[in-house]
Parts: sequence; structure tokens; C-alpha cells
Amino acid sequence: MISRQQLIEQIKQKKSFLCVGLDTDIEKIPSFLKSYHDPVFEFNKRIIDATKDLCISYKPNAAFYESRGVKGLQSLIATENYLPAETLNIIDAKRGDIGNTSSMYAKAFFDKEASGMSFDAITVAPYMGNDSVTPFLAFEGKWVIILALTSSVGSKDFQYLTTENGTLYESVIQKANTWAGADRIMYVVGATKSTEFTNIRKFAPDNFLLVPGVGAQGGNLQEVCQYGMTKDCGLIVNASRSIIYATNGEDFADAARAEALKIQQEMQVELEKAGII
Amino acid sequence: MISRQQLIEQIKQKKSFLCVGLDTDIEKIPSFLKSYHDPVFEFNKRIIDATKDLCISYKPNAAFYESRGVKGLQSLIATENYLPAETLNIIDAKRGDIGNTSSMYAKAFFDKEASGMSFDAITVAPYMGNDSVTPFLAFEGKWVIILALTSSVGSKDFQYLTTENGTLYESVIQKANTWAGADRIMYVVGATKSTEFTNIRKFAPDNFLLVPGVGAQGGNLQEVCQYGMTKDCGLIVNASRSIIYATNGEDFADAARAEALKIQQEMQVELEKAGII
Repeated sequence: MISRQQLIEQIKQKKSFLCVGLDTDIEKIPSFLKSYHDPVFEFNKRIIDATKDLCISYKPNAAFYESRGVKGLQSLIATENYLPAETLNIIDAKRGDIGNTSSMYAKAFFDKEASGMSFDAITVAPYMGNDSVTPFLAFEGKWVIILALTSSVGSKDFQYLTTENGTLYESVIQKANTWAGADRIMYVVGATKSTEFTNIRKFAPDNFLLVPGVGAQGGNLQEVCQYGMTKDCGLIVNASRSIIYATNGEDFADAARAEALKIQQEMQVELEKAGII
Repeated sequence: MISRQQLIEQIKQKKSFLCVGLDTDIEKIPSFLKSYHDPVFEFNKRIIDATKDLCISYKPNAAFYESRGVKGLQSLIATENYLPAETLNIIDAKRGDIGNTSSMYAKAFFDKEASGMSFDAITVAPYMGNDSVTPFLAFEGKWVIILALTSSVGSKDFQYLTTENGTLYESVIQKANTWAGADRIMYVVGATKSTEFTNIRKFAPDNFLLVPGVGAQGGNLQEVCQYGMTKDCGLIVNASRSIIYATNGEDFADAARAEALKIQQEMQVELEKAGII
């Protein structure tokens, strides 16, 4: 379990607010790994070993594991068990259902005795409202990361609709702020929306924002920091494909480290610029 | 795979539009089943055997299986493999993510070779818009069931917000209607909102509606039919706890059948009243 204070301290110590996304696709990993019992776990293990001093968070994407059935779930469980204790370990699962069902999803990802996994945080879809989110908050010390403004083209369909409480994504943030504070709730805000960060900070001045979309999806780190950074940093920027698939050779872990280092150094500049370190 | 026409014919033949929800909680099943290798599958198998002539659909709730880790997934896969070929087999998973991730979720539930499972339909959360839903539609002949108006108290938080295209749930239906027709898309509408069905039929005149909330959640079947039924029936009404936990004894399957029969007989009256059979 990682408290807000521990997260902030880790950011200062590692001079990084990088989250490495483990969207590990068995079709895309180097072929020499296929001889291992669990090639996806072997891949993740080496990525983790190569990057854990440069990032403050890991984020396996549940879909990539679920697509492989039982074998995929075994890879996910092995990965969760291997993740460092000090990083914020997020399961990117986008869950959300009525109360008794969300309680079961919370057990699936937070209760090691029940499922074999205990992540620190989960991404949650807000459409079903309060009782779809609060069962995750019932697990003391765990984080809920609520979708606000996402990075892909479909975000335009509903998230920008005008409601009586501002846009839909503004409504989501305002309402979710009544469920728990910035010590338990984060929001997903895509890096491709960097000019929106000023607006988001009006509604979520203190919450950490999980920011996907830097790298393969085209978001710009400097802009995200310019508009979204707070005195506590307040940002966790995710990169997945640009790091884990930096090359497809036997040196993939070294290449991932080099890419993570490049991003960490850019992040260090931003943290220094903001006087955080 | 079940086409719209096959679904309608099955409703007429079985005189039923009942979906049995397999929200199977290992803590709630009769204790004598615990001696079996896979108690949850044994439970589901007997429920399926006892109800398959009375219902036209089954709906395992993914959360209840995921909460048990690998064992739970094995129970889900065994259940999917046992489901009758003629029923509409829905995985209630409420998934939705950016395009490449939704494609992986589609593999998880639609591609037997990849995951061990091939459901006919999946429930999907709409918040992330177009590209979060269309990857499921890319699987020919499979159904996507989009959350519109859900049954629990949290539905009030966002689904009734007023937008430039009506309420949010109306916006969702109007937009999703542009992604595919009533032969591929259904909507989730909670039975607890029965007076809203008239309004929903303005926006989704032909789509089948998956209606949870009858039974344990307090929805009224007659009202749902009065306001929501079409000339093709257009309704799939789900009951979970009231059927599968009708008793907690060794006769649980007989009790489940008795409860399913009671609902089927009520449904037959409604189908006759509407001149569908």
C-alpha cells in the first residue's frame, strides 16, 4: 500500500513520475522468450528489473492478460507478485458495476487471499455512479483512479457533452470528489488533451492525475507539466508501447531502460523547473 | 452465435424472455457441493440443466468468477463451455477501453481459441465512446449490450444529466445507434426504471433491451412489459439471485426451476397479451 505522502517522496527521490504500462502482447515480445514456461511473465520481469529505479509506478493492462484465458491470468498474477513493494502498482481494468458486483471486482484485484493479487490501485469507469465506485474505496488504503477525460478519439462522444454541471467529465470529477479525497482518488486524463489540464485543475486541484497517451499516442510531456503539474507534482505519466517495445531483440530490456531513462531525465527537468526537487 | 431472428423464434417457442443470471458466489452455494473439484461449475451445471427449457439466455457475471483468481476463471470457462448452443449467452463484464485494449477484451470473451471462451454477447460501458465499443462489433455476429440506464442508486449520478442531446442515457442510445443496428446492439435498462421504458422506446424502438433488476432488486415485470415490449418482444429480463438462491438446500436446482417456471408463466401471459404468441 502506497500513501499519498509515500508517493510524493518516491517522486522526489527517483526524480521521476513515470508509470511503465505493462500492455504485454505475447505476439509482440521477442521470440527467444517463447521457450520459457511463461514468456509474458519473463518479459515483464526483465522490464521491471530494468526500469524500477526510473519509474514510480507500474500499470499492467488487464485486457492483454485476459485475452489469453487461464495462461494470461497466471502471467498477470506472477507479474503482480513480482512488482516492487515501493511502486504504485495499478491494475488498468476500467471496471464498474452495481455495488455487490463492484465488491467482487475489488476482491479480484485487491484481495490477495481471494484472487492471488493485491494491486495498490485500479482504474474505474464512472458511468454507473456512486455505488459502482465506493466498494473499491471500502478497501482501506487502496486507490481508485476514475476515468475523466480519456486519450482516444471516442472521448469526444460523451465526455465533452454539456450538462447542468459543466461538461460530463467536469461533472464526473465534481461528483467523485464527494466520494473521497485526493488521498484516495485519482483521475485519468489523457496526455493528448494537454490544454485541458488548466481546466481540470480547477476541479481537481490536488488529485494526482494518471496521464496515458505520451509516446505512441502522441501526447507531449512538457505541455502536460506546464498545464497540469502541482506543488506535489500531481502527475503520473504512463508510457507503455514506447518503452516495452523499444526494440524487438534480445536487448529489449536494455532498450526499455534507455527509453525510460530518457523520459525520466525529461521529467527531472520538469520537477526542477517547478521547484519540486 | 444467435441472430436476432433466432432469438425471436426462441422466445416464441419457449414462451419466455427470461435470462438466468449466473452471479454464482461460492460463499452462497449449498455446502454439499464443496466436495466437488469445481463447486461453482457443479452449481451452474445443475442450474442450467434445471432451467434451460424455461429461459432464452444465460448471463454469468464476470466479477463473481474473477474474485476467485485462476480457480474462478476455470469455473467461468467450464460454465461457458456447458452453456446450451441455442441460448443467448451473455458475459456481464461491463468492459470498455481504447481501441487496441477493447480488441483484447473482445478476444477474452469472443475468441475461444485465444481464451477458452466464446460468448454470444458482452455488456459494455459507453463512457469512452466509439472506439471502445466498435472492436467488439468487429467480431461478426456477436452482440454488444451497452449500458444505458442502470438499476441501482448510482445511476442518478450521471445517466440523468441533461446534455445538448437530451439526458446522458438518451445521448448514449442515439450515438450508439450510429455504430450498428438493432441486429447487433442491445441496451441495458434497469427494471427499476419501468416508467422510463416509454421514453427509451422513442430512441431505441427496435433494439432488444437487457433488463436486470426484477426480483431481488425490486423491479416489476408487468410494468416493464407494459412500457417496454415491442412486436418482437424486444426484452430480455434477467433474474439472478431470486432464481439461483431460491433455497440453500440440496434441492436448490428444483427450487431454481420452480422460480424460473413462475417467471416464465408470467412472461407467457405478457407475450399472449401482446399477441406475440
